[in-house]
Parts: sequence; C-alpha cells; structure tokens
Amino acid sequence: MAISTTPPSGFRDFLPDAAAVRAHAAETIAGVYRSFGFQRIATSAFEELAVLLGKGGGENEKLIFKVMKRGEQLEKARAGGEELADMGLRFDLTVPLARYYSKYGSTLPHPFKAFQLGPVWRAERAQKGRFREFWQCDADVIGSDSWHSEVEVISALVTAVTRLGVDHPRVLINDRSLVYALLDQAGVEEGKRIPACVILDKLDKLERAQVLVELAALVGDHAARALEATLLADTPALDLLRAAAPEAVGRLEKIVGALRALSTRPDSFVLAPSLMRGFDYYTGPVFELHHPALASSLGGGGRYDRLTEKFGGQPVPACGGSIGFERLLLILEETGRAPGASAPDAVVTVFSEELRLPALQLAASLRAAGLSIDVYPGSGKLKAQFRYADQKKAPHCLVLGPDEAARGVVKVKDMRSGTEEALPAAEVAGKLRPAS
Amino acid sequence: MAISTTPPSGFRDFLPDAAAVRAHAAETIAGVYRSFGFQRIATSAFEELAVLLGKGGGENEKLIFKVMKRGEQLEKARAGGEELADMGLRFDLTVPLARYYSKYGSTLPHPFKAFQLGPVWRAERAQKGRFREFWQCDADVIGSDSWHSEVEVISALVTAVTRLGVDHPRVLINDRSLVYALLDQAGVEEGKRIPACVILDKLDKLERAQVLVELAALVGDHAARALEATLLADTPALDLLRAAAPEAVGRLEKIVGALRALSTRPDSFVLAPSLMRGFDYYTGPVFELHHPALASSLGGGGRYDRLTEKFGGQPVPACGGSIGFERLLLILEETGRAPGASAPDAVVTVFSEELRLPALQLAASLRAAGLSIDVYPGSGKLKAQFRYADQKKAPHCLVLGPDEAARGVVKVKDMRSGTEEALPAAEVAGKLRPAS
Repeated sequence: MAISTTPPSGFRDFLPDAAAVRAHAAETIAGVYRSFGFQRIATSAFEELAVLLGKGGGENEKLIFKVMKRGEQLEKARAGGEELADMGLRFDLTVPLARYYSKYGSTLPHPFKAFQLGPVWRAERAQKGRFREFWQCDADVIGSDSWHSEVEVISALVTAVTRLGVDHPRVLINDRSLVYALLDQAGVEEGKRIPACVILDKLDKLERAQVLVELAALVGDHAARALEATLLADTPALDLLRAAAPEAVGRLEKIVGALRALSTRPDSFVLAPSLMRGFDYYTGPVFELHHPALASSLGGGGRYDRLTEKFGGQPVPACGGSIGFERLLLILEETGRAPGASAPDAVVTVFSEELRLPALQLAASLRAAGLSIDVYPGSGKLKAQFRYADQKKAPHCLVLGPDEAARGVVKVKDMRSGTEEALPAAEVAGKLRPAS
Repeated sequence: MAISTTPPSGFRDFLPDAAAVRAHAAETIAGVYRSFGFQRIATSAFEELAVLLGKGGGENEKLIFKVMKRGEQLEKARAGGEELADMGLRFDLTVPLARYYSKYGSTLPHPFKAFQLGPVWRAERAQKGRFREFWQCDADVIGSDSWHSEVEVISALVTAVTRLGVDHPRVLINDRSLVYALLDQAGVEEGKRIPACVILDKLDKLERAQVLVELAALVGDHAARALEATLLADTPALDLLRAAAPEAVGRLEKIVGALRALSTRPDSFVLAPSLMRGFDYYTGPVFELHHPALASSLGGGGRYDRLTEKFGGQPVPACGGSIGFERLLLILEETGRAPGASAPDAVVTVFSEELRLPALQLAASLRAAGLSIDVYPGSGKLKAQFRYADQKKAPHCLVLGPDEAARGVVKVKDMRSGTEEALPAAEVAGKLRPAS
C-alpha cells in the first residue's frame, strides 16, 4: 500500500513561492534586528524535559512534544514504569534563552542584546491558522533595567515589519504594576486581582460594556465605575494614572515619549492602561503590535525580571519582544506584498544537445555577473521550454541556436510581451538586470 | 535544586560569532543555489513514522527520534501494548523531498529544481564531530535524465563553497554501473559484488595495497589484478573503462568535460572509477567533494531514480547533491575565513540620562542610512561603555556629550587605534561605512 504524502496534522510544507517569501521575511527581520545591535544566537531544538517543564510543570507540560528514550534506556523505563521520554521539543524561544544566558552569561557582552529566529513546536490541537510547528522571531535585552530596552525592542519590531511593507502597526503599551495599582485604588481586594485581570484580558474579544458588566459582578458597581474612569477610559486619564502609580507611569511616559520622538508616525504609539498580555512571566511594562488585517496581535512582549531563577542564577532584569511570524506572513500574502523571490532572472533554453554546453557557459557568465539564471534541464521542443520558463515565472528566456552561436549573439525573449531581440552576448547581463 | 544549563548530549548552542557565521554560510549557499535556478522548498520537521521507516524499516529505524503520542492516544496505546510514538523527526532532507514531490509534483515546474536548507535529527551516539542535530543543504533536479543535472548540481555545490572562501574543492566523479561492469569483466561472480564494493568503499581509510590484498582474498589473484588495472589505476585507463561500460563512461566524460569547460580550475574534476559513496539509494553517477583540511568528504551526491516509488508514484529520474554544512563550518573556522558578522558598525555611548534620547535619535538616523548601530543599553561610566563596545567587537564608538550636542557634532572613536575625531552629524555615516 502506498504511504500517505500529507504532512502530519498541524504541520506544513511550503511550495516554492511560499518558501521564498518566508526566507525573505526571516532574512529581513534578522537584518533589522542586527542593525539595532542585537546579536544572533541559536540553541538546540531539543531540551531536557526538566528545562521545559520548569517548576510548575502543569501548564507547559501539555504543550510539549516529548521524544521517546531509545534502545536499552527505553526497555528499562518501560519495565520499571518510569518516564518513557528523556527530551522534548522547545515550545518557545524564551525558555531556551534563559538556559543559554544562565550558562554563557559571564562570557557575553553586558548588557546582552540577543535575537533568535527559528521554529518552535507545540502539541496543541491543530485548527485553522494554528499550527504545531511555527516560527518565532525574538529580540531581547538582558541585564539592563532602563526604559531604553523597551524602546529599542519595540523600535526593532516595528522597523522590521515596516521594512517588509506592513504599514505602521499600532503599538499598545502598558505596565502590569499600573493595572495592579488601579485595582488596589478602586478597592479590589487582593484575592480578586487575578479574576479581574482575566476579565480585562477579554477586551480583545468582548465589547467594553460587556467587560464592565462582568467586572461589576466580580468587584461591585462602585469599584467597576472607578475602573471605568481609569483602566477603561477612552483616552488615558493621565492625572489619575500618575496618582495611582507614579513610578510606572513615569516610566511609561518615557517609553512612549521616546518612541514618538523616534518615529515618523508618533500617533501609532498608544498608552493602553488595560493591556494585560496574558498571564505569563511578564513583571512590568508590556506591549503589543496590532494591525487592522488581524484579529489578534502581530507581536508583542514585555519586561520579565525572573528569567534565570530556575537555573539557580541571580534575578536579572530583562525585556524582550517577538514578531508573530505566521501572522505577519498572512498580512504579506493578503496585501500582495510578498515578493516572488523564487523566480530566476532568465531561463536559458537548450536548442540541441550540441548547444547544451554553450547554454551552460552562457548561464555561468551571467551568474558570475550576479544574475539568477536557470538552464532548461531536460530535452525537448522550444515550446515546452518556454512553458517551463512560465512555470518558473522567469521574466526572460534566452535562446542560443546555431545562428545566434555563429553570430556571437543571444536572442532575449520578453516572456510578458513576447517580443524578441538579438543582443551581443556581452550586453545580455545589462538587459536582464532588474531595475532597482 | 537548580536545573542543568547544558543542552542535551549531541546538541549544541551557538554563541553570537558562531551563530552569525552559520547564518552567513546558509544565506550564501541559498543565494548560490537560487542563482542556478533552484527554488527553495521547505517541509515539516516531523513526519509520520511510515514515511520515515519506508519499506525496510531496519536501518533507518535506529536513526529516528520518535515523538510520543499524547493524552488519550498515549493511554490507549499503553493499555493496548501498541506503538507509543506517532511521529518522528526527519533524519535527512531526501525522504521528505520524495514525499513532497509525490504530493505536489503535478503542480510544480517540470523538471523541478529544488533546494532545501535546514536541520535534521539523528539518534546516533554523540561523539566528537558527530551531532544529533545538524544542518543539510541539498540541491536536486527531479524529472530529467540528462547529464545536464549532474553538471548543474555539482557546479552549484562547488560555487557555493568557493563563494564562502573555501579554495576550489576536488570533485571525484564516478558511475556505479561502471563499477559493476568492471567487476563483471574481471570475472567476479554476482554473489561477491556487494562484498567487493564494501572493500572498495574502504579506499577512504585504507592504503590501496591493503585494499588489493582484501580484494584478492575475496575474488582471487587473477580478478584482483584485473581490477588493479581498471578500478584502482592511478590514472583512469579510459580505453579499458570504455570497453567495459561504454554508455556509463560516455556519460561520465560528458559530465567531467562540461564541468572542466565551465571552470577556471578544470583539473579539480576527476574521474574516480573506484568511488562508491556508500550503499544508499544511488542508481548511476555519484560524486564527492573533497578538501585537504577534511578526512571525510565536504559533500556529495548522485543520481537516484527510484525516489517516489514508496509513495506509489511512477519512477522519476532524479539527481541531487548536498554540502556537509557542519564540515564546511569546520573549514571556515580553521582557515579563519569566518566573517565576524555579529559586530555592529558602531556603539553609541550614553553620556547621561538627559542625552539618552539624542543618542537613540543618532542611532535611528544612522540605521536609516543602512548601518548596524548599537546604543549602550545600560547606564554607567564611559569606561564601562567602551568595554561593552569591545565585547561586541564594534570598530567605532560614538560619543554625544553636552559639548558635542551643543555644537551639532559627534565624537567618533576608533576602537583599534584609540584616536578620536569630532565630525558633523551628517558626516558620521560616511565615516562608519565599511570599505567595500
């Protein structure tokens, strides 16, 4: 019986155009991160289970694809009723970064600005738009508690997606300690803080009025009204916010002020007192990138100061952000901004077996001039070769028949207009070079 | 207890310089493959076990890292004594390519020229220079039986490593059917063909005389002497080879002839009648790249015409090659040709908190001019900031103190010579741009 050719559920193959766009996007992001002084690092795809599970286990454990022990180890574990897996696939790039920094930190520049691009794997139920293998693009500053880190991380993220043609995203910025201070001030008791944050975190999906109803049910009408004026105000009530959490708001104003001063689109940076960004490891400022084409965020991040704790290190101040690579690609596809980088500049046709080597030599000279040149790899009629060039979306075909070879010229066929022109071999490279 | 920070045995982390070199090498190889008209494709890291195991199972099964089933599926499998894994990590890029081509072939250009770069995983015992996670860089032509494919694949591989500064590698080329024909001609009976090939395959490690002794013990003195004159001749005895396998030798002469005609180093392409290249799926021509700095090959490949069989497809002629990425990096490191691409062009120091925003603005304008600019992310004395710039191997530091800010200039410090120069802000980008 033939074996299925479909990748496992939740996993994807990429056809040439899609693979070219992904590679182009990844290289562009890496180039922008580098231009901000972040240094590329890379870690292994596999980690010891203890690294991935951390203290709690629970939440993360369900995300982990576990790798089975092998050979004798597997037999032993099976016989003894022990854990059958010894490793797991990384489910994000932050946990590996924490391990990495704990191990190599003393030999790295201080503060350390790192970036990582690569796949992560999550054992989630596969569904539309949610994959079990996807890329993350992280930039982090470890070892500095200055607001400077937030500005550089956010600027790098915004510059990267803008460089790819995504119109300036809107950036929401907040500080979790501001949320906690406003809850305190409104009289929300400590035990209801987390449930209140859970409700606030629904602002992405629910109407503001509905969120207020749920808040009132939890904390009472009086507190809900206070929160309506602070956390949920249409325009941030800066005086009220400053009174509640002067330090956090002072810091937020510095971050937003610097981002606006550095940008040609200052109004795209917005203080958003209700932004929570889920319930992970963030300890201070948090931020999210939004784009009208997406229901969920295009990226985000925040400050997390307890990074290396589980590896026995001292607490280290850190701030990081990540671009949602798969969502970014959705936008690039939908807005038609994905460059078709898989096409060669020209296909050289092969007129006859005798002229195959001259065709290869013509290609070699054009490649040496920096062009991307394909030579029809089969044998067959010119018509089939032109069809091949169309399949590869090549803008030109080069024909080198016996006449052309004798005259030292090459026939250049424009595949869109169908026009042909015989040029001296030395002039072909100039003709093919894409206008830049 | 603190969790270990070391990656699992056989897995690696990459410090910034190493990560930068790897990324640079991968991008260079991809660029060269593209310039030859190969199109990038990508497949999932995970495959169904049936895809990886193929018909035989056996040999490959030991290489596969298996992924455990999850949740109810795992409970069910455990209770029923069934297979506990449902997927595995790819151990090469050729098996996924076969699945990919079987699934999408009818929508792809024909012939199809594909390239792939990415990690593969092998459950081998970790040892020096052998890793359980490593990269492969494959280029394949599927759907053409012309010698043209071998020429393009080999040229692409050689151009890629040469572009990276590895001096022209030596390329050994052979055809397996030539070996079989020479064994036949020498009177080696069919049953001893494989054992004889196993002995020939030791030429990498053993002296030629020792190989001859082993051959004589297997096939007798008379046959061994015949093979000494054909398979093991110092200079290929072309007349004898042509007589034994005219078709295969004619094809080899076309391949080697074209490669020599296309190269500035024609003597680096050598017909090597004893080259076997292991015992995998190759069905015709095989080739290997060698470099004096390496005991084993720097890459290789061959023709394999039974690619899509296990997916129920018709036999498809195919030819592919691969660069040994990890070995290539060893050469780049040893010859000092690895570019230190992790360094920014300059670090902007931060004179005081008041001047942090102007420092960020200076960086933004230089980045917009295409430069890679870091801004010291901490706070502290200028001396610590210069040390940071040294750690990042930045060739320049930019100082923007109150005097400079007032005068509209920037102090540019050359980190090697220690000299300083005050320049108008508009002239700084020109000063920093690396000479090209």
